Amino acid sequence: MRANTGGIFTTVLPFAPEGFMRLCRLVAILCAALLPGVVWPGALWGAGKVTEFTLENGMQAVVIEDHRSPAVVHMVWYRTGAADEPPGLSGIAHFLEHLMFKSTDDLENGAFSRIVEANGGSDNAFTSWDYTAYFQRVAADRLGLMMEMEADRMRDLVITEADVMTERSVVLEERAQRTDSSPEALFNEQLRAAFYLNHPYGIPIIGWQHEIAGLDRADALAFYDRFYAPNNAILIVAGDVTPGDVRRLAQVHYGPIAANPNLPERARPSEPPHIADRVVRYADPRVATPYVTRSYQAAERNTGAQEHAAALVLLARILGGSGTTAVLGRTLQIEEERSLFAGAYYQPLSLDTSEFTLINVPVPGLSLDEAVADLDRVLADFLDAGIDPEQLERIKFQYAAQLIYAQDNVQSLAREYGTALTTGLTVQDVQEWPGIIAATTPGDIMAVARQLFGGERRTVTGYLARPATTGG
Amino acid sequence: MRANTGGIFTTVLPFAPEGFMRLCRLVAILCAALLPGVVWPGALWGAGKVTEFTLENGMQAVVIEDHRSPAVVHMVWYRTGAADEPPGLSGIAHFLEHLMFKSTDDLENGAFSRIVEANGGSDNAFTSWDYTAYFQRVAADRLGLMMEMEADRMRDLVITEADVMTERSVVLEERAQRTDSSPEALFNEQLRAAFYLNHPYGIPIIGWQHEIAGLDRADALAFYDRFYAPNNAILIVAGDVTPGDVRRLAQVHYGPIAANPNLPERARPSEPPHIADRVVRYADPRVATPYVTRSYQAAERNTGAQEHAAALVLLARILGGSGTTAVLGRTLQIEEERSLFAGAYYQPLSLDTSEFTLINVPVPGLSLDEAVADLDRVLADFLDAGIDPEQLERIKFQYAAQLIYAQDNVQSLAREYGTALTTGLTVQDVQEWPGIIAATTPGDIMAVARQLFGGERRTVTGYLARPATTGG
Repeated sequence: MRANTGGIFTTVLPFAPEGFMRLCRLVAILCAALLPGVVWPGALWGAGKVTEFTLENGMQAVVIEDHRSPAVVHMVWYRTGAADEPPGLSGIAHFLEHLMFKSTDDLENGAFSRIVEANGGSDNAFTSWDYTAYFQRVAADRLGLMMEMEADRMRDLVITEADVMTERSVVLEERAQRTDSSPEALFNEQLRAAFYLNHPYGIPIIGWQHEIAGLDRADALAFYDRFYAPNNAILIVAGDVTPGDVRRLAQVHYGPIAANPNLPERARPSEPPHIADRVVRYADPRVATPYVTRSYQAAERNTGAQEHAAALVLLARILGGSGTTAVLGRTLQIEEERSLFAGAYYQPLSLDTSEFTLINVPVPGLSLDEAVADLDRVLADFLDAGIDPEQLERIKFQYAAQLIYAQDNVQSLAREYGTALTTGLTVQDVQEWPGIIAATTPGDIMAVARQLFGGERRTVTGYLARPATTGG
Repeated sequence: MRANTGGIFTTVLPFAPEGFMRLCRLVAILCAALLPGVVWPGALWGAGKVTEFTLENGMQAVVIEDHRSPAVVHMVWYRTGAADEPPGLSGIAHFLEHLMFKSTDDLENGAFSRIVEANGGSDNAFTSWDYTAYFQRVAADRLGLMMEMEADRMRDLVITEADVMTERSVVLEERAQRTDSSPEALFNEQLRAAFYLNHPYGIPIIGWQHEIAGLDRADALAFYDRFYAPNNAILIVAGDVTPGDVRRLAQVHYGPIAANPNLPERARPSEPPHIADRVVRYADPRVATPYVTRSYQAAERNTGAQEHAAALVLLARILGGSGTTAVLGRTLQIEEERSLFAGAYYQPLSLDTSEFTLINVPVPGLSLDEAVADLDRVLADFLDAGIDPEQLERIKFQYAAQLIYAQDNVQSLAREYGTALTTGLTVQDVQEWPGIIAATTPGDIMAVARQLFGGERRTVTGYLARPATTGG
């Protein structure tokens, strides 16, 4: 990520609503993030438009053809993110992402983005727990140039002490602005750290402040040398290209880069059973709107076995999707007027275990404990009443429409493939997903709901409060 | 640790009272554990009785002379424990400790302990977060033999696949018996995991069950090769020996072993500020006596700067030391009869950050929430009332007596030096400790109390309950 732009996309997921005014927008953002922008059977995009190949050095490639505009999105995704960091070096994946915009043996400091811009393009990067990705959007005839530059910085990055000093300050400032100045972000960080007992998903992507401050050149170089190699990378090109063009250019630019024979196996510490209920209370005078969250450990989409996650995606929409037709919003916001907002989130794209989170923002005058009790009550009623088949059909229809709409943007489509492929899925999994969603029955959804909220499942409950309202 | 004997000493510290019947015994055990068995100025043992030297290969040695009986305790401590384990390999330090009793190139499987026994001795080992130690107690004239065997297994351990299979089953059974069959131990494990947001002190010494099950021969060998070397070891010999004898024998047996030039720097991920209060509720039908705990992050003893920890040690004794003259016990057990037991624990010997924990076991009929409120109330009253100077003098006198008494056992004295030296202290620190304790004033103690319990400090509160009593 360049110093002056965007950031760590997934730090806002799934626990981090940033203030109530942003909650409503957040619903849309979260729902968008949950959408794999993929092919609904028989819809606009045929599966045949997406092709794959693998270079001899192990670099995987996915091509998404779209000839409507003479532009192309070029992405390189590394199967390495914050959850792959060495202990004590939290933030190094994201820090390296910053340093990737510095010099290489061929390019001087900052030249990368200047060249993209001079060619009429834009570029950026993002880091999550499971991946780090770099991308440019340019005219289709500049694809070779983009590959040349991206290949260059895959192995020939130059990191100077001066760059490290500068960018460390930049990242610390980024953390100060995005996390430390936001009670919601701090709350989110504490929640995740308490939620994950053993898995590094509990460590913030941007890093703990005290560990960012200690990151040095040797750390960055070691991480780069270990993980930045073609056999750990996925090329995704979407837009006005043919698979043949992409393969030819990829051979020229990425083909000559040697695989890293010492690429470590991708295995992170995994979660032990959650056998205790946990509560996290964070109080901050800057909190505009107090709220509560309740999180459950939930399985993620796994290759060849996405049915459970599909049921969870639909369950999240039934309980707390956007609008007020979902169970939580309809009951607590509309009928009872006890909530300003109530929703449910689930992130299905994750290499390892994931979480399912409910949120309730009570109306002024109700306590946070009452807000937790409201969630429990609505959930219990839902488990009794079951699913309204009409609501489910409506949600499936909306979802299908959103999937089709999402395909209209090659960048988001490319991003969905990148996310899927770096979280353990295949192109086939992505293409089968809409059919699996469509085939999910009310019975499937109630089965995962009972498992998720059942008596033996433990919860992590979060209270975000102003100091005066932090009670019991 | 041999398969059929003792174990991970410090897993019971500091959160793990195992059932109320054991609580009272635990008080004594914990207090003993808090005692550095060291020299009270002017008391029985002079500092001159403890001498040190370092071999050329970096192996540090401490000799504690005691000629009252013709026996000797021979210990080798490694500055490596469970908190030094690679991510995902929890339990490997303790697992390796088991494997150290298998064969070497010179000794067949199990011969080590048989030879010790045949020589009239006994041997054992223990693993903590900060250290792993091996020791034998034998007749003084067998010291050379012990060193010969300990030096042999420092570099020439043989680990077979069969040993790994067998001992992994043994460790899994050890975990099943010590942790999984004990609600108090499981509670303790969940508490620690929730208490430490980033530091590996949150990972159980014995390891998570699912990670123990995956430990293999390569993991054990890699850990052994990395950490078992003279420049990571401390020799402690206590008993009927002279420093000259020990140095001569150490030169012969340990001197020839090469240092490991690749010994990693000892740096663990450290804790970010604790900015949220956390609650852990563990309910188990096997719980005999429900209780609550409240834990605070607390500084440990640091070399050359032990005053803060000394004040915390005395604070723990003032609030919740053994007997019912301490503030918590006197108020809640004797005066108000609201507690079966109330106490305070603090572990000053820790390489990195430590914790200060209060415990309250309410009488039947009182809820756990009331038990938490009782702790808060007594603490608040204590912060208002301050320290009774007579109580402090009595506690200091008792402490001094315990220190002197502890010196009567060379094994515990050796252990105290080993613990201190592997947690970042020096022999001088150990010897200065009693004087620092003696010089601690009521004002010093109240200052750390206000800092520890002050408004900005966050807490982790634990509820151990039977399922029927899990409320709120």
